[in-house]
Amino acid sequence: MNSINNISIIGLGLIGGSLCRVFKSSDEVSNVVGVDTDATVVNYAKDNGFVDQATCSLAKGVEEAELVVICTYVDSIAEIASELYDIVPEGCVITDVGSVKEDIVRRIDDTIGENIFFVGGHPIAGTENSGIQHAYPELFRGKNIYLTPSDNTDRTALEKVTEMWEKAGGTVSEIPPFVHDRIFAMVSHLPHVVAYSLINCVGSVKDIENIFQYSGGGLKDYTRIASSSPAMWKEIFGMNRKNVLDAIKSFRISMQEIENAIESGDSGKLLELLESAATMTDKFRRN
Amino acid sequence: MNSINNISIIGLGLIGGSLCRVFKSSDEVSNVVGVDTDATVVNYAKDNGFVDQATCSLAKGVEEAELVVICTYVDSIAEIASELYDIVPEGCVITDVGSVKEDIVRRIDDTIGENIFFVGGHPIAGTENSGIQHAYPELFRGKNIYLTPSDNTDRTALEKVTEMWEKAGGTVSEIPPFVHDRIFAMVSHLPHVVAYSLINCVGSVKDIENIFQYSGGGLKDYTRIASSSPAMWKEIFGMNRKNVLDAIKSFRISMQEIENAIESGDSGKLLELLESAATMTDKFRRN
Repeated sequence: MNSINNISIIGLGLIGGSLCRVFKSSDEVSNVVGVDTDATVVNYAKDNGFVDQATCSLAKGVEEAELVVICTYVDSIAEIASELYDIVPEGCVITDVGSVKEDIVRRIDDTIGENIFFVGGHPIAGTENSGIQHAYPELFRGKNIYLTPSDNTDRTALEKVTEMWEKAGGTVSEIPPFVHDRIFAMVSHLPHVVAYSLINCVGSVKDIENIFQYSGGGLKDYTRIASSSPAMWKEIFGMNRKNVLDAIKSFRISMQEIENAIESGDSGKLLELLESAATMTDKFRRN
Repeated sequence: MNSINNISIIGLGLIGGSLCRVFKSSDEVSNVVGVDTDATVVNYAKDNGFVDQATCSLAKGVEEAELVVICTYVDSIAEIASELYDIVPEGCVITDVGSVKEDIVRRIDDTIGENIFFVGGHPIAGTENSGIQHAYPELFRGKNIYLTPSDNTDRTALEKVTEMWEKAGGTVSEIPPFVHDRIFAMVSHLPHVVAYSLINCVGSVKDIENIFQYSGGGLKDYTRIASSSPAMWKEIFGMNRKNVLDAIKSFRISMQEIENAIESGDSGKLLELLESAATMTDKFRRN
């Protein structure tokens, strides 16, 4: 980060708060500014020494920024970016951490002005906990970070954002925005849809008192995911709507195969389907 | 276990092997006999001091047994029990650890003779690992153990089996077999169907190389379940067929609700559905 002295983080939740802590403890960034609409969060960041400055004012928060990282929910990222165009210094690089990329990248590419640069990003580093009180600087260490450059992306800006994530301990790869959204619909958004659905299904059993008390490992493994922030996931599902719906359709086909094998008593087919999953899982876990 | 000197464990996998280890280290049981059809497993149990004796012969393994615990896959439990009737000493108590109960309890109740007693049981203590090499005596400590007495169940036999599990560190409750099977279809069998289906669904994406590499926490939480023994789960799904199919139908309705809310862009309804799941999950995790 030789070239960046001033970094502004917008949205001080788990990800934004953790990024502040990474750069606050770095000798190479001289000024870390946190921005959040919630004054309590702004004060928390200040009081705990996560930032050099913090403010509720977007304009004040980015007035000297060379790099702005938007760490809000996906539905507000493009809008916040558009507010930034007129208030950031020339040459400023804007990036984000949203779990959905195609829509955000397209909207910003369509509106961004001269001498301001945008690079879409997505750190695979969430936990089921949200909020600045859970932020910690090691959150990104060893994690994969996907950047989603488009035809409009400036290479120097891309290098700066790459460098930023590497400083945070992440491993950076590039991937086209629409491919990103298809992949994460499958490996992240669908597992969340399924976990929320499973908990709602079990909870719909009314004639057995507190049915959850009976569960062992099977159901418990779902609870980390299903306790993730509903407000955040609602926006992700909505913004990646088409891919998520495709993934649900594909999931339904896979479940139907197992269901058919159970229903027809086709024990050989059932074993084959379960073994296919177990084999892929073992391979995946070993990696 | 004041009253039991001789205990025989049939099927030396994770559960059976762990039970051997519990009683081998207890002063109150003088003779722990392990039985398995696999000579390698029998020798493993002997060589590692998990048992006082071990054998591949069912007849030899139970000839002095006061308590027999059948720890095989669910599909062979009733058959093994029927082989025991003529070879166990009078007064012997037989129990099992199968994850499905109604069919097993009914079949044994229908065939068992005089002066031999059966009590169905299910310890909620599996892990994704199977096999005697993973057995450990603390496996049952603090775990819930469900016994499923029927109208035919002898109270003294029930007390003996209860005492056995309490010695192993479990907390014993009683529940009718058909209620057990409905509950566990929901809280255990369905989560397994769903996890196997999800992995198969993600693995069905062929145009993205090794799609699993992209996953973070979302998908990883499913992999413990989806790596559980296919051979064992095939039998559980098959034996609890009706309840599992009902559970899948119910799950599909819950998923459809979320799908509809995403598809129609009904953000309020979507939030409500996710919040319902997250609230139940939080309550469940706190317990």
